[in-house]
Amino acid sequence: MVESWSFLDTAESNFRPLVVIELAKGTKEETIEWFTKRIVDKKANGGAQLLIKPLVTENGVENIYLVGASHLRLLLGAEAVGLVKECSDNSMRTFTYSSRKTFKHFADDNHNFLTMAECQYIIKHELENLRAKDEKMIPGYPQAKLYPGKSIVRRLLTSGVLVQIFPLHDREELKKLSHSWYGRVKIGYQPLDDIRCYFGETIALYFGFLEYFTFALIPMAVIGIPYYMFAWEDYDKYVMFATFNLLWSTVILEVWKRMCAILTYRWGTLLMKRQFEEPRPGFHGVLGINPVTGREEPMYSSIKRQLRIYLVSLPFVCLCLYFSLYVMMIYFDLEQWALDYHKENESNFSSLMLYVPSIIYAVVIEIMNLIYRYAAEFLTSWENHRLESSYQNHLILKVLVFNFLNCFASLFYIAFVMFDMKLLRQSLATLLITSQILNQFAESLLPYWLQKRYNRRMKKRMCSKKTDMDLSLADQVNMEKEMGTYLGTFDDYLELFLQFGYVSLFSCVYPLAAVFAVLNNITEIYSDALKMCRVYKRPFAEPTANIGVWQLAFETMSVISVVTNCILIGMSPEVDALFPDSKMDLVLTVALVEHLLLAVKFIMAFVIPDKPRDIQMKLAKLEFESLEALKQQQMKLAAESLQE
Amino acid sequence: MVESWSFLDTAESNFRPLVVIELAKGTKEETIEWFTKRIVDKKANGGAQLLIKPLVTENGVENIYLVGASHLRLLLGAEAVGLVKECSDNSMRTFTYSSRKTFKHFADDNHNFLTMAECQYIIKHELENLRAKDEKMIPGYPQAKLYPGKSIVRRLLTSGVLVQIFPLHDREELKKLSHSWYGRVKIGYQPLDDIRCYFGETIALYFGFLEYFTFALIPMAVIGIPYYMFAWEDYDKYVMFATFNLLWSTVILEVWKRMCAILTYRWGTLLMKRQFEEPRPGFHGVLGINPVTGREEPMYSSIKRQLRIYLVSLPFVCLCLYFSLYVMMIYFDLEQWALDYHKENESNFSSLMLYVPSIIYAVVIEIMNLIYRYAAEFLTSWENHRLESSYQNHLILKVLVFNFLNCFASLFYIAFVMFDMKLLRQSLATLLITSQILNQFAESLLPYWLQKRYNRRMKKRMCSKKTDMDLSLADQVNMEKEMGTYLGTFDDYLELFLQFGYVSLFSCVYPLAAVFAVLNNITEIYSDALKMCRVYKRPFAEPTANIGVWQLAFETMSVISVVTNCILIGMSPEVDALFPDSKMDLVLTVALVEHLLLAVKFIMAFVIPDKPRDIQMKLAKLEFESLEALKQQQMKLAAESLQE
Repeated sequence: MVESWSFLDTAESNFRPLVVIELAKGTKEETIEWFTKRIVDKKANGGAQLLIKPLVTENGVENIYLVGASHLRLLLGAEAVGLVKECSDNSMRTFTYSSRKTFKHFADDNHNFLTMAECQYIIKHELENLRAKDEKMIPGYPQAKLYPGKSIVRRLLTSGVLVQIFPLHDREELKKLSHSWYGRVKIGYQPLDDIRCYFGETIALYFGFLEYFTFALIPMAVIGIPYYMFAWEDYDKYVMFATFNLLWSTVILEVWKRMCAILTYRWGTLLMKRQFEEPRPGFHGVLGINPVTGREEPMYSSIKRQLRIYLVSLPFVCLCLYFSLYVMMIYFDLEQWALDYHKENESNFSSLMLYVPSIIYAVVIEIMNLIYRYAAEFLTSWENHRLESSYQNHLILKVLVFNFLNCFASLFYIAFVMFDMKLLRQSLATLLITSQILNQFAESLLPYWLQKRYNRRMKKRMCSKKTDMDLSLADQVNMEKEMGTYLGTFDDYLELFLQFGYVSLFSCVYPLAAVFAVLNNITEIYSDALKMCRVYKRPFAEPTANIGVWQLAFETMSVISVVTNCILIGMSPEVDALFPDSKMDLVLTVALVEHLLLAVKFIMAFVIPDKPRDIQMKLAKLEFESLEALKQQQMKLAAESLQE
Repeated sequence: MVESWSFLDTAESNFRPLVVIELAKGTKEETIEWFTKRIVDKKANGGAQLLIKPLVTENGVENIYLVGASHLRLLLGAEAVGLVKECSDNSMRTFTYSSRKTFKHFADDNHNFLTMAECQYIIKHELENLRAKDEKMIPGYPQAKLYPGKSIVRRLLTSGVLVQIFPLHDREELKKLSHSWYGRVKIGYQPLDDIRCYFGETIALYFGFLEYFTFALIPMAVIGIPYYMFAWEDYDKYVMFATFNLLWSTVILEVWKRMCAILTYRWGTLLMKRQFEEPRPGFHGVLGINPVTGREEPMYSSIKRQLRIYLVSLPFVCLCLYFSLYVMMIYFDLEQWALDYHKENESNFSSLMLYVPSIIYAVVIEIMNLIYRYAAEFLTSWENHRLESSYQNHLILKVLVFNFLNCFASLFYIAFVMFDMKLLRQSLATLLITSQILNQFAESLLPYWLQKRYNRRMKKRMCSKKTDMDLSLADQVNMEKEMGTYLGTFDDYLELFLQFGYVSLFSCVYPLAAVFAVLNNITEIYSDALKMCRVYKRPFAEPTANIGVWQLAFETMSVISVVTNCILIGMSPEVDALFPDSKMDLVLTVALVEHLLLAVKFIMAFVIPDKPRDIQMKLAKLEFESLEALKQQQMKLAAESLQE
């Protein structure tokens, strides 16, 4: 049995388990020894200088290891990852070990200066940066090749020796967090700062956006209700509502950038320097010299990748889009058939039948989205992108285009080919509500129920324990390692994106969409929170300064919605009646208004500053200080040189 | 007489005059003594540590001073301004004095390592950064208040003690440059690198853009000629030409960004860090503590500025726009009158008269642009912007909006209100050609002629000298100080911007516009070069990485031109004839095509990378190296700390 300890801390009382490493069953002894040695080895020898301890359960050793680190090691790691913390004078600064005394709440014996999520992020960073020196392969696994500078953990993961690395939950903290988050029925904001401390910035920012977006939809919903109830369909009210919607959606997206800057400034990620991006784990190629790093690493020709993208992925996506349109046409046939059936045999059953095609179609759409998602992941992975960010961008682009068409094609067809506003309203309602129900079910309730059932079985097996709190560390690790892995915020944002589409694209036809969206989002906050706290393994914190490509996606959607809404208003019979003589004038007026609205949108986006004034000032102050420091240094040097 | 020398270099042979300082006649002796003392004083004492020497002419001392610097001082200054130079391994790096040996062409005795323009830029930077210590006012001028940290040179300029600071021409270099630039008739590129060495990056980039833009217009011009000659006015050719134009203009603007990155990478400015921006010279306010710098400096409430902008400037601009439209309506009355006159008395004279209103209008437009320009400068200056960049942006916005309307309103009116394509073509041609002739005359030939005449008189006065080359330093300084000041590239870019409008907005109606633009630009290159070399004082080099807000302005113009061209094609009788039954279908088709083209434009702008691959790689390499260096440093620190 390997009992490895870092040379610094030998007292068990110092050890706080933070991260769990699960190795495959039957991993060779020499591999384990080599790997743990590398983890505890000194920095100077190319080790990570962390603490590691095998987990001992009732069944003996199970190749599960707990990783921790000394307080000093964590502080040095915080400097290495470029963590930004609050200083005593309330400004945010990049943490350095030598300036540690100037930071707020810092004390040599205060082990809570770094949050647990930060500690786990540092350990993950250190583990991933554990690099091969002159090993040619992983000891014991000759087929798992290494070359100098290759990340050991990534190779272990791809060769299957390392099953998973995940951070441990903190039962007590989690209980506190879940109580203040969703434990009690209350009206108020989410505890975003606590969420950030526990789950990291990416997830906290998603919940922040979800909350913000829900609040932002409330005015639309409030105005939408009377429109729906009193069926206000006269011209000016219509136009007013749509114009309000369009400008409102621009304003909320711009204001979000400001909100986001406020949040991420407070969390320090707005100032965090981008780290140099390593090749993503799945990237493979022939060994060559990277011209950027000068290191030997796998290289893959960018031309080959372009060929794969344009000759395989692009045609495939087009084919899928065609298929999706084909399915849509079948749906319209079904719809027609249901209508005919209803006309022939008018009954309660037949009028119920009217909704069946829409519901079937909504289900089919969700299934197609799911299947396509797997295909897109496979293809993007096969395109062999070197960087995770490039992989993500290509994946998001593929998924967004398909989901957009899949979800909205039928609505566009009904609106602009069939000109059937009543059907549009009905389809919109069915699609929106069905997809919301399906999503809530598939995303949160189903996994929650499965997890619950599993937990119950687990508990029965180890029947000695009574409640969650009494679980020993070994039981906790065993339970958590079986939990599902949270795959990131992609699906959550995508759901919001499609919802935003339902709300804004045809807002003037179905003003009630915003109401449903608000209701859905309130339950979504609760079910997503439940999912994060109870269903999934704790994810590693991921520092981020904004919602990235989703901002662009939402903005694009709001541009498209200007076009669709203008056309819808132009087609309404009330507006039509205003131009009795010439359809031409109507179309020209609509086009003019559309262009004006688009121009106003762009000007507004340009005029509203992305960061609030006080954040701008704080950033300017930081920049000024660093330039001053540089100047002082140069001046000293200059004085010395001139003195010589 | 003050004969001041820096304490380091006392041998006159070392002194190379680089920059001229002209003080007002009758400046008090104590002021001069204080100022020169500050210039030569040691860095450690808050001086600039430069060399200064009074200019002695036949008439005695005239309060003109020559400033130079020792080689070492210039190298240290190069580090202070963050100059980027080429290393021995062909990569570009920020120059530091300690790493000087690694740079290409560096040798301790090579005084050409820095170009003369760079030396002058460094001296300007050092002079501007000469700051008041505890002086409360400029000695001898109690009304010229100073406070700690205030730039002395700026205060001297605003109080009128300092008349001007300008860099000296290098007669020999200038002769070489002008010979290779415009001295001989040749087909080929401009010597952009030489221009950059002599005039700095901003001006070289303008000439680079002018040249690039001219080349980019050639395909449009070549395709345009047969369209004009054979009057190909059938539908498909029309659409082809316009579509080509629209996509082409997107491509050229995107490719320019890449070209610009290549040029500025080579020149080092792409990598140059932005310096902290000081308040602009004209900024005034009550002394207060700046929250960013923590220094005492004039403060001006941002709300007051907003009020001035929205309550005075904005209404004024609107009024001017209204006035411009009013003048336009008068032009149309005149036009009508000329037409009537021609109908009544048909003669050679009367058909000539047909062109008179257009020519008058073109002249009036130019005059209005000029007057408005002064008003805009006054207003923007009155708005009291703290930063030069903010001042420039507000000025450019004001001028652009007015010039756009002033130049194109009549064309829009003719095209989309009068629907008179023949008149549009005629007006476009007259406006384009008249404005080109006027511009060339007012911008280059007139100043050149005035300068020539002045030079001749000057030479006659000091009749002993025969040629330019024989001029003594004193004569050269005296001649150059009387030359006009080049006010930046604003007017030159504006001219190109309007030309781009003439070419692209109505390209499908008047394909010959591109031909005229190409011809104009070829002469423009020559006359601008002449202007830079012979008419104006040498301007200080201004490092820049791109053409800034003009890129945005050109892109906006190309978006607008998509809209106008689509409408023009939709209105052509040939396209009209394709939809005999329904005007409605025509309009809808045009709107659809327009939206598609706009979408294609945005996608193209998104897909074409802004920097070529090899520049991206070089930048990535630099970033990687600096991160590696940081990591090494942290690792060393970590190892030490953990060892303790």
